Amino acid sequence: MSFEITKEYIQKIQQLIVENKNTVLVNLLEEVHYADIAEIIEELETEESLYLIKLLDSEKTSDVIAELDEDDREKILKELSSKEIAEEIDELDSDDAADIISELPEEQKEEVIAQLEDAEHAKEIVELLRYDEDTAGGLMAKELVKVNENWNVLTCVKEMRAQAEEVTRVHSIYVVNDNDILKGRLSLKDLLTTSTRTAIKDVFIKKVDSVNVNEEAEEVARVMQKYDLEAIPVVDEIGRLLGRITIDDIVDVIKEEAEKDYQMAAGLVEDVEADDSLWELTRARLPWLFLGLLGGVGAARIMGLFEGALAENAILFMFTPLIAAMAGNVGVQSSAIIVQGLANDNLKGSIGQRLIKEFTLAVVNGLILAILLFVFTWIWQSDFNTAIAISISLFAVIIVAGIIGTFIPLFLDKKGIDPAIATGPFITTSNDIFGILIYFWIASLILEF
Amino acid sequence: MSFEITKEYIQKIQQLIVENKNTVLVNLLEEVHYADIAEIIEELETEESLYLIKLLDSEKTSDVIAELDEDDREKILKELSSKEIAEEIDELDSDDAADIISELPEEQKEEVIAQLEDAEHAKEIVELLRYDEDTAGGLMAKELVKVNENWNVLTCVKEMRAQAEEVTRVHSIYVVNDNDILKGRLSLKDLLTTSTRTAIKDVFIKKVDSVNVNEEAEEVARVMQKYDLEAIPVVDEIGRLLGRITIDDIVDVIKEEAEKDYQMAAGLVEDVEADDSLWELTRARLPWLFLGLLGGVGAARIMGLFEGALAENAILFMFTPLIAAMAGNVGVQSSAIIVQGLANDNLKGSIGQRLIKEFTLAVVNGLILAILLFVFTWIWQSDFNTAIAISISLFAVIIVAGIIGTFIPLFLDKKGIDPAIATGPFITTSNDIFGILIYFWIASLILEF
Repeated sequence: MSFEITKEYIQKIQQLIVENKNTVLVNLLEEVHYADIAEIIEELETEESLYLIKLLDSEKTSDVIAELDEDDREKILKELSSKEIAEEIDELDSDDAADIISELPEEQKEEVIAQLEDAEHAKEIVELLRYDEDTAGGLMAKELVKVNENWNVLTCVKEMRAQAEEVTRVHSIYVVNDNDILKGRLSLKDLLTTSTRTAIKDVFIKKVDSVNVNEEAEEVARVMQKYDLEAIPVVDEIGRLLGRITIDDIVDVIKEEAEKDYQMAAGLVEDVEADDSLWELTRARLPWLFLGLLGGVGAARIMGLFEGALAENAILFMFTPLIAAMAGNVGVQSSAIIVQGLANDNLKGSIGQRLIKEFTLAVVNGLILAILLFVFTWIWQSDFNTAIAISISLFAVIIVAGIIGTFIPLFLDKKGIDPAIATGPFITTSNDIFGILIYFWIASLILEF
Repeated sequence: MSFEITKEYIQKIQQLIVENKNTVLVNLLEEVHYADIAEIIEELETEESLYLIKLLDSEKTSDVIAELDEDDREKILKELSSKEIAEEIDELDSDDAADIISELPEEQKEEVIAQLEDAEHAKEIVELLRYDEDTAGGLMAKELVKVNENWNVLTCVKEMRAQAEEVTRVHSIYVVNDNDILKGRLSLKDLLTTSTRTAIKDVFIKKVDSVNVNEEAEEVARVMQKYDLEAIPVVDEIGRLLGRITIDDIVDVIKEEAEKDYQMAAGLVEDVEADDSLWELTRARLPWLFLGLLGGVGAARIMGLFEGALAENAILFMFTPLIAAMAGNVGVQSSAIIVQGLANDNLKGSIGQRLIKEFTLAVVNGLILAILLFVFTWIWQSDFNTAIAISISLFAVIIVAGIIGTFIPLFLDKKGIDPAIATGPFITTSNDIFGILIYFWIASLILEF
């Protein structure tokens, strides 16, 4: 079923554009899904993309534009007049429309809104622009099917036919009272299986999940996943129905959230893709590397403090990469488990209990690894004291790194900061330095230098 | 809307169980969503959970059991007879039913299936058990609403009423011919807005996305996301309609995939949660730490080879943690970008082009970092040659690590291996060692030792 976009296909389209074969192009792309056209456009030069956007019907191109990556969209919208943008926006659902308008330069926003044809649509978009993009309000669309509890099924079906024209997919029919307060829902299935004279009041389901318009997007995602919802109504403080959020938007939230955490763990500071520019990639990667450099320089300075011990205890210095790596690894492992637990909201017990568990775990792991390192070092250097010093230090470093790795994300979360930062550059680098400091300190106590 | 499970609430339930207050318990939990009951059960002891499962109606407990974590479910099912398990399975959709049965011990599977009440349901489950869980067949449910293209809307609505009883949520009505070959779909919306005498043939949409039953789960997820589908029909090689996959299952696939990659990047070898046992956590964490230990030991041995240079070039040894960290960091960053690009299927260009881009990027980043390190080392040690040796080595290490980090995931992917392995322990550790080797080699050339 997959539509494969080959190099030849792209070249064919480019050729047709050069030759201005508009009819052939329109026919060729007629049956192609907008998501595929968006992928085609991402392969084309901006001028070619503009040619296509202007050529094709705005009913299709509006969805294509909504589907594009933000960077690609920006390039195209810059070349369109406010009037042209408004024509595209006219075709979109209010949530996509508001998302696109919010990306426009401040001065252009009003221009575009002023040129929208449907005043009702414009009003809805303006309302949506008020909400923060990371809240339920920022995710919801105004398009939904709602009926009054005082109607009967027949009126309801008639009204729905009218409303459904506007709504891409009908999940539930929401039931409101005269004040627009959400009272319950009606499933399409029920509507199909009920006599037309029945009063809505008698058939609708009074229990309906909803979220407050100011709820965080992540929490909405959690609720919709937990209860396997495909759509959820959004209400204001007094329960008035404002809009609805559909699962496809939530899938995007989940993916973005996961990607952000992944990139954080991999040491990427900004959201980047392989095809971003060299400059964007450098901006995403250099900060961590720079911190790593600082950390390495810090480690070198610490080792410099113990230079006097170098002649007699050269072996200690050989193991510093090992100590730094272990401190970093243990820290990231502990943090990652906590970060995932927080994200999935399945972390039980108090901070104290968590730390005790991590401590026990670090003792077990630390002991096993320290014994292995002891055996190896003793065989290599046949010096009992050095072998003991190195392995006890490793043991201590693993425990400290585990506890820091567990504590920091819990602490950040309590303070309302994204705990995923704990798996990122700053903590890892401090763990490295801290590890080397502890290592030399313990070694100096045992070996008395 | 969120249902908060407090400690007091759990204690109250435990108290009611101790006192055998069954009616109170049933009433208390009557309005509680099965997903919430599953969370309650995860807080209870196995015996208490069993008490609840046996007390509540199996229409509800079947969903609770399907919702539980695999470990928790295993504990409970172990205490239930095959007859009791069959009663729960009877209530579930075929996909959840098959998932649960597939987790049972081999000998119990047939026993449970033999005790199922509905022979049709049993047949469907047996069919689903054939498919690998990571394919479309493993994700699909047999429950769907299908109509024959030769019917009219009235017959269709009547048939649907019967079928819809079985189906939790109706997304699309699939249209098949007499041989069960998928021909198209009909939206509920259309059905509501069409005259009852119209022939299905005249109104159904001929274009319908579908996936082959052997398609990989990840590919199904990609397709459903790309085209914003809420359900997709599954067909066999000759196009016969076998089942359908709904977006809630895909949300789980996406989450699991993201968590797997995240855990890999954080150095966790198995899928673990914060609340897993000490033994499970150790098993997930120790392998990477052990590899890290081996890597560290390897690095120490390499440094040992250059011990002769220690007296004159002590400073070189101070920078080994920095070099190892940078090699690891650059490698993980490059790999992570490629891994994400592959996962999102938005990687363009050949392997050669990727490597050239990464090379350029590494040259830019490497140059900036090498200059910084040069300045710092020169100020600290006022030794031009050493400063030059260290910074040129860093530059080389960054380039090599970047190229390895880019190449390995692309190579793994070409070989059909999960590229996320590249961000895991093995590659990171080799990068560390490799980095230190290059570092000493270049330094020895410049400083002539």
